[in-house]
Amino acid sequence: MSLANGRHYLAIPGPSVIPDPVLQAMHRPAPNIYTGELVDITHGLVPDLKTIAGTSGHMAMYISNGHGLWEASLTNMVSRGDKVLVCLTGNFGVGWADVATRLGLEVETLDFGKHAPVDPAQLEAALRADTTHTIKAVMTVHVDTATSVRNDIAAMRKAIDAAGHPAVFAVDCIASLGCDRFEMDAWGVDVMIAASQKGLMTPPGMGFVWFSDKAFSEGKAANLRTPYWDWTTRAEPFHLYEYFDGTPPTHHIYGLRQAVDMILDEGLENVWARHATLAGAYWAAIDQWGSDGALRFNITDPAHRSHAVTTLNLGNGDGTRLRDWLTENLGITLGISLGFGAIGSDESHGYFRIGHMGHINAHMVLGIVGAIETSFTALDIPHGIGGSVAASSFLSQIGTQARVAPSENTGGCCG
Amino acid sequence: MSLANGRHYLAIPGPSVIPDPVLQAMHRPAPNIYTGELVDITHGLVPDLKTIAGTSGHMAMYISNGHGLWEASLTNMVSRGDKVLVCLTGNFGVGWADVATRLGLEVETLDFGKHAPVDPAQLEAALRADTTHTIKAVMTVHVDTATSVRNDIAAMRKAIDAAGHPAVFAVDCIASLGCDRFEMDAWGVDVMIAASQKGLMTPPGMGFVWFSDKAFSEGKAANLRTPYWDWTTRAEPFHLYEYFDGTPPTHHIYGLRQAVDMILDEGLENVWARHATLAGAYWAAIDQWGSDGALRFNITDPAHRSHAVTTLNLGNGDGTRLRDWLTENLGITLGISLGFGAIGSDESHGYFRIGHMGHINAHMVLGIVGAIETSFTALDIPHGIGGSVAASSFLSQIGTQARVAPSENTGGCCG
Amino acid sequence: MSLANGRHYLAIPGPSVIPDPVLQAMHRPAPNIYTGELVDITHGLVPDLKTIAGTSGHMAMYISNGHGLWEASLTNMVSRGDKVLVCLTGNFGVGWADVATRLGLEVETLDFGKHAPVDPAQLEAALRADTTHTIKAVMTVHVDTATSVRNDIAAMRKAIDAAGHPAVFAVDCIASLGCDRFEMDAWGVDVMIAASQKGLMTPPGMGFVWFSDKAFSEGKAANLRTPYWDWTTRAEPFHLYEYFDGTPPTHHIYGLRQAVDMILDEGLENVWARHATLAGAYWAAIDQWGSDGALRFNITDPAHRSHAVTTLNLGNGDGTRLRDWLTENLGITLGISLGFGAIGSDESHGYFRIGHMGHINAHMVLGIVGAIETSFTALDIPHGIGGSVAASSFLSQIGTQARVAPSENTGGCCG
Amino acid sequence: MSLANGRHYLAIPGPSVIPDPVLQAMHRPAPNIYTGELVDITHGLVPDLKTIAGTSGHMAMYISNGHGLWEASLTNMVSRGDKVLVCLTGNFGVGWADVATRLGLEVETLDFGKHAPVDPAQLEAALRADTTHTIKAVMTVHVDTATSVRNDIAAMRKAIDAAGHPAVFAVDCIASLGCDRFEMDAWGVDVMIAASQKGLMTPPGMGFVWFSDKAFSEGKAANLRTPYWDWTTRAEPFHLYEYFDGTPPTHHIYGLRQAVDMILDEGLENVWARHATLAGAYWAAIDQWGSDGALRFNITDPAHRSHAVTTLNLGNGDGTRLRDWLTENLGITLGISLGFGAIGSDESHGYFRIGHMGHINAHMVLGIVGAIETSFTALDIPHGIGGSVAASSFLSQIGTQARVAPSENTGGCCG
Repeated sequence: MSLANGRHYLAIPGPSVIPDPVLQAMHRPAPNIYTGELVDITHGLVPDLKTIAGTSGHMAMYISNGHGLWEASLTNMVSRGDKVLVCLTGNFGVGWADVATRLGLEVETLDFGKHAPVDPAQLEAALRADTTHTIKAVMTVHVDTATSVRNDIAAMRKAIDAAGHPAVFAVDCIASLGCDRFEMDAWGVDVMIAASQKGLMTPPGMGFVWFSDKAFSEGKAANLRTPYWDWTTRAEPFHLYEYFDGTPPTHHIYGLRQAVDMILDEGLENVWARHATLAGAYWAAIDQWGSDGALRFNITDPAHRSHAVTTLNLGNGDGTRLRDWLTENLGITLGISLGFGAIGSDESHGYFRIGHMGHINAHMVLGIVGAIETSFTALDIPHGIGGSVAASSFLSQIGTQARVAPSENTGGCCG
Repeated sequence: MSLANGRHYLAIPGPSVIPDPVLQAMHRPAPNIYTGELVDITHGLVPDLKTIAGTSGHMAMYISNGHGLWEASLTNMVSRGDKVLVCLTGNFGVGWADVATRLGLEVETLDFGKHAPVDPAQLEAALRADTTHTIKAVMTVHVDTATSVRNDIAAMRKAIDAAGHPAVFAVDCIASLGCDRFEMDAWGVDVMIAASQKGLMTPPGMGFVWFSDKAFSEGKAANLRTPYWDWTTRAEPFHLYEYFDGTPPTHHIYGLRQAVDMILDEGLENVWARHATLAGAYWAAIDQWGSDGALRFNITDPAHRSHAVTTLNLGNGDGTRLRDWLTENLGITLGISLGFGAIGSDESHGYFRIGHMGHINAHMVLGIVGAIETSFTALDIPHGIGGSVAASSFLSQIGTQARVAPSENTGGCCG
Repeated sequence: MSLANGRHYLAIPGPSVIPDPVLQAMHRPAPNIYTGELVDITHGLVPDLKTIAGTSGHMAMYISNGHGLWEASLTNMVSRGDKVLVCLTGNFGVGWADVATRLGLEVETLDFGKHAPVDPAQLEAALRADTTHTIKAVMTVHVDTATSVRNDIAAMRKAIDAAGHPAVFAVDCIASLGCDRFEMDAWGVDVMIAASQKGLMTPPGMGFVWFSDKAFSEGKAANLRTPYWDWTTRAEPFHLYEYFDGTPPTHHIYGLRQAVDMILDEGLENVWARHATLAGAYWAAIDQWGSDGALRFNITDPAHRSHAVTTLNLGNGDGTRLRDWLTENLGITLGISLGFGAIGSDESHGYFRIGHMGHINAHMVLGIVGAIETSFTALDIPHGIGGSVAASSFLSQIGTQARVAPSENTGGCCG
Repeated sequence: MSLANGRHYLAIPGPSVIPDPVLQAMHRPAPNIYTGELVDITHGLVPDLKTIAGTSGHMAMYISNGHGLWEASLTNMVSRGDKVLVCLTGNFGVGWADVATRLGLEVETLDFGKHAPVDPAQLEAALRADTTHTIKAVMTVHVDTATSVRNDIAAMRKAIDAAGHPAVFAVDCIASLGCDRFEMDAWGVDVMIAASQKGLMTPPGMGFVWFSDKAFSEGKAANLRTPYWDWTTRAEPFHLYEYFDGTPPTHHIYGLRQAVDMILDEGLENVWARHATLAGAYWAAIDQWGSDGALRFNITDPAHRSHAVTTLNLGNGDGTRLRDWLTENLGITLGISLGFGAIGSDESHGYFRIGHMGHINAHMVLGIVGAIETSFTALDIPHGIGGSVAASSFLSQIGTQARVAPSENTGGCCG
């Protein structure tokens, strides 16, 4: 007998749960790509996706996954041999830096390890040291999907400004857009990338680059640009096929339209608050479980934790043991360890991740909390008792007080 | 902000959660109804649905809901003016009795109230008193969807036999088939009815009557029979259209085929064990919550509780208050009170029901447990602390011991 | 190699082609059945379905197929032993009469054969002869799905009135509603039935009975009524479950809503005109093919032909030979012979039917015309050359003149 | 009234009609991307897609449309400043050449106009003239989607060999794979590209590059390669994410699996023969229509016509007039003119295209033929009478003789 035989819940940090109406919208015949509904929907997506990004700037859409967006953003921003400064806080910053290197850029890194966010002071210092302004771009992830750290983008902008450095500021929001608050223009971001399959709740296959006037203007001379990645025509197309440099991703467009409608109907502030509150429920449970036994947050300070994914360490291979048992027995799949220890090592298998991005509600979260609690006992993993009670207690405050993850409103750089 | 904006969970006692592959199987063009796949699938459903019912007898399929099956079964079993004995344990027995009355039958009832199962001894006594055998049928529900009581069908059969009474024995398994153990032939049931939208995990719109040789043979003279409900041709059709007396329910057939495959792939014993275990998890939480405050099981003795639905009483209108808050805030919908107190009364609004039938797993159950626990605190409803811990603890025993709801293996007629 | 491997077209007289948006609307989780969207949609369907029927009277909805509606209508109209007069013009009148007989009614028939419509004069004479008004109901089909004859309902009403007969007038529009013009109130119809899977473009499984004040009032004393078929509560429900006497057909309701929207968006007059024009295209081709060889309309006079189905006779078993070849080789399935000759006989296999009801357009029709023309040559079946040219020529007049099937505007009782 | 209100048929040269089972397969929750079904399916696609391409070489899969594949193939084959020779026969060769230019390659072209295929003799001459072998790649389209010309790939290979030239030979089969016969290894092709949305019957969003050992080996030094397009890891991945350089296109993978199953179940030879025969039906009708009036094939010689798309010229803006009328009135959408005359000019609007690729059968084709015939009359466009009769006559030979488009077996370089 298995207790998994019901509606399976894939709680990984992307692809996230796809709402039924999104799948429904995608189940249709191939549409006319010359005129009519598809063209109108595509036009309409642009302003709405800018709203979600918090920008009045430009946007290019791609048939691509997130790795492609790394290439799309770099090839439009800088030229062969240019130097970029990448602030590393986990796997995905490393990945973007690697793409930069392979594209022929000179890559300087500031590595903040896997357990902490970017320190704006160090960034400022590095930029001040670059007195000749050879650094053309500062790159970072907003949230690193592997470590679940969330960087303070506004503070990084302030550091760049404080150093008086002209580099464009590029941020990877793949794991955060539509989950964690992000305000592109207000925070002074020049280039931002995100993909369809996380906070945007649509299957993998589409990606987006938003960019400021400055980035657009300075990037015109970028010589890494290739026809497919060139954001120029995509941002200011004349025909539908120019949005996507050829055949558009017809079915994704319909799905994305539905997803964007759901986000705007709920309201961005509400979407962010929902993510913050549900993350808070997880953290309350984890705080309780971690009060005894080995379970630890990868990011100690809640002010620096993503609201979309939480990376945990159980130690001693127990992360994988837990994941396997949960999938087999209780009907959920959690995220694997990424970037901790050698692949296959005990250290690596000690980590696991919970995705809590996009189309999630309290029931889904509380079910995971209960399932993890069940697995601790079933697998004889020492833990503090009452994580589920703590999560319920945290959520029960809805309506009676502000719903902000508790540790976050006690100072912290995010204010 | 609402924490409900994710995958909503409708945890009512039917329609139950429809598996994605069932919906997928139903999303197709209209099929050829003369020959080919649809005909083959329809033929193949019959033996498989008999297997699920535990019978080598006969079966008729209908385009109908459960109320129609009440009429289908009665009109084939008995004749105008015949007497039937209906054992009442809640709303649905009452409903079936009412149909019998409206069909012109003489209805005798044994009413066991809303909080207890049929007492086989009283049934035996009533049948012994019917020395002239004017009672043509004994009718009962296996599980009453309103009260969540589960009757001991095998014990009722023994009582009928002990009384030496020849009445046919008819059982409504609408709320139990594919959830609670049911063995039609082994338990001596003559007529059994079930519908598509509960344990069979398919949208409402199809129903089934299984019947023994005895019921088939004795029913041939039944003069209440109407062309649509007549089970004769449906059970032994020559053409596809005779299975359903006209156009078949094409899309339901595809969906049901998928659902039946899922049940048989999992194995009936495993399906029953899953339901028993998940019911046990709910009950462990409820036991704990009920240790303080007003929450009470409608059926005190776990040996008499359905594994598919649990009826609870919070008193004082709090049942409805809880339900509304959960739907609005946490993303789940529980079942309403049915048959307790006057409609709209405080008594009525004190009750609510949890559906746990069909396509459910531990994650879904634990999420409900956590959500209820959350709501208790949010709504200031007194309750014993730690229901979620109790549920997790109960489920954590998977694999290390038999998974039977605890109180059920301590005596009880179901042994 | 087969040329059938594309989008198969099931051109039978029901189930008809289901529009993609209808299937899309049905692909969803089980909805809340207590409150909210489903309840609102169900309420909203009633006035819209009355509009489609052309009545301000009453309506009851059923989980049922067409055969069930025969029973639903009769059991609410008349009482055991009552006499009904059934006007026969093919299989489906016979079927309804058979249900009446099996329900214990006295059935008088007027049989107009399989190749002609009801003659109102004979109806009037029969009613005049019933001087004591023992006939309680006059029953007929609007269109017989087997013979494809269309009866003149308004003329039948006039005949009843001319005879001064008080019988209720009941019409089966299963094969015509949403295809052929039908105006219930204007034409003086008391009871009308239709099902979901033809002109209403939704999968089989729902049916409807519309009825006038007179039928409602006189039917109150009908003693054949059973709880399931009783139209009283269904027509004036207080709770959602009363619409369907129990669990509603949740997914059909969503599909039907979409289908009804499509009909109303197009406009009933336009829907009828589309069917008339497309039928005219078929007939133009058939006229041409029939100018040589054996092919014949079952109904000679176009004024009496259905706009939803056309029954043809090729003679000598060639109907079945044609059907099989088309399915195997060209990707379409036509309707089988129904009610002509003994099953399996050469006569029976000489007939076939083309369904042209519901979600059909010129492309679909012209493809069938071309496919039949292809098959004639492939199978060496003698035929007049140029049927496809005739069909195209007929359709090419769109926009330049009224689009009425040509022979219909040259006299005929339908004016 | 419109006769378009049925199942719309989008008969453009891609995206093509998506089979219902493909859409059904894509309507599912996000799958586990670490292990299990999705991983297995992805692995299994590789050998099957090689079978469809006729190669035992290598393959890389991309989240991309066709334009991306132009970039993918070039960046892996050649280096900055290399010279490539592009044989032009319409828009898509021009497009590929333009990408090459923008990537910094030196592009030499052989332009064969818009109405004729590549002349292998001219290719041979050009290569002989390149005595120093500065040309690194010879590029061509198999079928140009704009002109509908089909080039003789085997003959081009022979020309390259005859010239003793070592250039890699790269072919764009986007508009032909799964439609026209293509045998990569047998025909000596080194690099081939195709996308999901044409013969592969899956929504736009995936693309493929197949390549020989030679291309793989010589390409290792290519310095245009970027991380996203790099085919190395994609062709020999260790983890699932390496197949797609990051998140896989989960839903496309499921859809493509279904489409590939349908192709292999039918058999490649049968798929090709079906396309050839259905193209032949169109051509028979067009030959007849063109016998009077202005309608002309863009490619006169049937031996050089694609089996997947046919480009036609009606002259004088009538192409667009025809297209618009058909969409508005009869329920089909044909392909627009591409590359003929200035955009918006009368010349441009004289052209239109019929897509007949992928999931198509005789019914669909005959419906288009009938619809065009209808529109000619409706719009008073002079044409030879009897195109539909000619198409039916052509198709009626199925089973009695070889089904090869007639003019193709009378000589021609494809022999």
